[in-house]
Amino acid sequence: MNNILIIGAGRSSTALINYVLEQAKNYNWFVTIADADHEAAARKVAGSTNGRATWLDATKVNDRRELIQRADVVVSLLPAHLHLEVAQDCLKLKKHLITASYISKQMYALGDEARERALIFMGEMGLDPGIDHMSGKQKIDQIKAKGGRLKSFRSYTGGLVAPESDNNPWHYKFSWNPRNVVLAGQGTAQFLEDGKLRYVPYNRIFAQTRTIDVPGMGEYEVYVNRDSLLYRELYDLGPIPNLLRGTIRHKGFCKAWDALVKIGLTDASFPILDSEEITYHELLDAYVANAAPGSSVKEKVANLIGESVEGETLKKLDWLGLFSKKKIRMRSATPSLILENLLLEKWKLQEDERDMVIMQHEFEYELARKNYKMTSTMVMKGDDAHSTAMSKLVGLPIGIFVKHVMLGNINSIGVNIPVMKEVYEPVLEELKDYGVVFHEKEELIR
Amino acid sequence: MNNILIIGAGRSSTALINYVLEQAKNYNWFVTIADADHEAAARKVAGSTNGRATWLDATKVNDRRELIQRADVVVSLLPAHLHLEVAQDCLKLKKHLITASYISKQMYALGDEARERALIFMGEMGLDPGIDHMSGKQKIDQIKAKGGRLKSFRSYTGGLVAPESDNNPWHYKFSWNPRNVVLAGQGTAQFLEDGKLRYVPYNRIFAQTRTIDVPGMGEYEVYVNRDSLLYRELYDLGPIPNLLRGTIRHKGFCKAWDALVKIGLTDASFPILDSEEITYHELLDAYVANAAPGSSVKEKVANLIGESVEGETLKKLDWLGLFSKKKIRMRSATPSLILENLLLEKWKLQEDERDMVIMQHEFEYELARKNYKMTSTMVMKGDDAHSTAMSKLVGLPIGIFVKHVMLGNINSIGVNIPVMKEVYEPVLEELKDYGVVFHEKEELIR
Repeated sequence: MNNILIIGAGRSSTALINYVLEQAKNYNWFVTIADADHEAAARKVAGSTNGRATWLDATKVNDRRELIQRADVVVSLLPAHLHLEVAQDCLKLKKHLITASYISKQMYALGDEARERALIFMGEMGLDPGIDHMSGKQKIDQIKAKGGRLKSFRSYTGGLVAPESDNNPWHYKFSWNPRNVVLAGQGTAQFLEDGKLRYVPYNRIFAQTRTIDVPGMGEYEVYVNRDSLLYRELYDLGPIPNLLRGTIRHKGFCKAWDALVKIGLTDASFPILDSEEITYHELLDAYVANAAPGSSVKEKVANLIGESVEGETLKKLDWLGLFSKKKIRMRSATPSLILENLLLEKWKLQEDERDMVIMQHEFEYELARKNYKMTSTMVMKGDDAHSTAMSKLVGLPIGIFVKHVMLGNINSIGVNIPVMKEVYEPVLEELKDYGVVFHEKEELIR
Repeated sequence: MNNILIIGAGRSSTALINYVLEQAKNYNWFVTIADADHEAAARKVAGSTNGRATWLDATKVNDRRELIQRADVVVSLLPAHLHLEVAQDCLKLKKHLITASYISKQMYALGDEARERALIFMGEMGLDPGIDHMSGKQKIDQIKAKGGRLKSFRSYTGGLVAPESDNNPWHYKFSWNPRNVVLAGQGTAQFLEDGKLRYVPYNRIFAQTRTIDVPGMGEYEVYVNRDSLLYRELYDLGPIPNLLRGTIRHKGFCKAWDALVKIGLTDASFPILDSEEITYHELLDAYVANAAPGSSVKEKVANLIGESVEGETLKKLDWLGLFSKKKIRMRSATPSLILENLLLEKWKLQEDERDMVIMQHEFEYELARKNYKMTSTMVMKGDDAHSTAMSKLVGLPIGIFVKHVMLGNINSIGVNIPVMKEVYEPVLEELKDYGVVFHEKEELIR
């Protein structure tokens, strides 16, 4: 195998492309970077002699297939809905495929065919999902190996802003897809507690948070992810009574986000007809005029969410400019798009600012009639707005895994997530060289 | 024209079919009733010599087209998503089409073609939508004709239970599609107030109700419909400052329904994995265990919604059996399906019980520098659980309109809703014979 194809050279691809080009030098591989923005792809290849940039509109079937045909391993960084077509090409042309996205039901349905053709289709190979699976499953397997019986697994990840670059009342800046942040939590979250299924609908996800203690960093809050239950089987956890995945935020974030949900600003399903003409202040008024009595829009919002006008939540909303008499100037935009557009500017990581990723797993298990609680924590900061912790933590696991596939070290054929030892061991080991280190704390409980 | 085809012989079709068969005798027409349940269709035709029942699986293109080919006017009572295929057949085979369903964007897109072929495609020809359009637009046109300038149009409809058959704490029974009742309000409602757009997200639709006074019946509450704005153009209302459509419920209903929304039971997007094994009590606990402290599930729910355990809302939830330790016994059912299944039994109209429909329009207009408020109200009760007010009010307008199309009285070609005088005048006039009478009350204001 000699040829690697990476489809997508967007913001999040730098660490991956740098890593793969570096390895390509050592092993004499050739890397093709394809993107609809040829300039972007060319910049990423820079002067490497082991890589070339090429223009690709990934929706053009023939162009796409021609590139895939010439590769041995394909990495797709495309939006999730395009992976399936790429996967079908890879099946047909017998190529391995790696992505960082959640694996859909349709993708899993290709599992038998991929296995029959001895193809490796690895998904969820980034940070979250990705490193969370690998580091969590490594510990689970270690606990099981020494005879421990797992009673609880809770896994939390957050893409945040580093304290030294934190200068806004939300204590948050974007280091990842803003749209996903705005639409987060829509649906009903499911998790396991004391052996029972638990549900949290969207109208309560950001109201019903948990507090976690991150060693050395202090307390953070967590809202529950939708999908915890899926991983009961995928992690082979059997009848574990407690299982929860959540997202980490700075304290106070969720309460303020809950206010945006209550107001109604996270809805992506309809356009605000006059959004080109009205101000943010008028938009807010359109939502709360009848919801809560009071003389000013700010008082109405405060009344709606049951907080004082001087409270922390109102301060956060005010800082966003939601009460400003500035025109929105977006044509027939959905509420969530108006909100996203406002946040894009407000939560932008400036050139020299650093992001921070926190991942923390909490395990409880019984061993020799004693109960233990083990916490495993990884904190990593970015260098600046370009070289973010987020982009490294998403890109490096893919890159390292690509290397092992190219070297023939991987036997896990079919559609999978990275929960097998032959995958997580070498990837986590090499990630340590890049500062991805988990610190553990264990204590006897009860 | 001699042949009428009615596709669909379900519960709601009786009044329509009886009316059309009756007219068929007078005018020597022939009526074909097609349904996948041949028995049901046959029962509806009974011994009429002007009608026949036939079996039809409406998804079978050839069978469907063969029947449509032989008709002059087609009435589709199929689920809304099947209308479009029927409409395309009608375009191709040059047949008029009438439905009681909301007209989709895709259906409107057939307008030019229908007009070119001089076809009448009339939608929203039932009760709500249907009689609301006709009776509302009749008054609007009358007010305009005498020189009045409309300042406000609010239109409310409710399918309820008649007071004499009202024996449950919700004061509600089903007279129409239960699924639509359970999923009502999902999205963001839009309306106009004081010349401004107003929005209400799902999490507040049932919390933020209005009270209306129905002459002779007392006070009712109203929650806002999603779609009011659409009718600004369709009713030719120009720059009217106040426009709202709403649904009428007995007082206290919305607060209790809001509790079901808050708990999370109206979500149709995911299956409860263990719904075959658990009880209603366990289901509720799964939703509120972490939401609200308190010793019992009932106390937790009371705490979540901020009401006392002895309050009216808790009484309503309790009466539904939501706290009962009876097993749900439905396999991997969504929360909304579990709720619907429970309500089906609890809110069932018994044999001799009567439903009741209330429709009330409220107009405000200026005429010769004076301001008027006019209220137009229609109340109708059913005979029993079969001959409901709901089924008459949905079926009769279609039947009457079919007659006028057959007689060549209708010139409104293209895709339309019934807002033109040539439609609403004869239909509303004949509806009076069936007890559909609007009572008006007018007063000077300010």
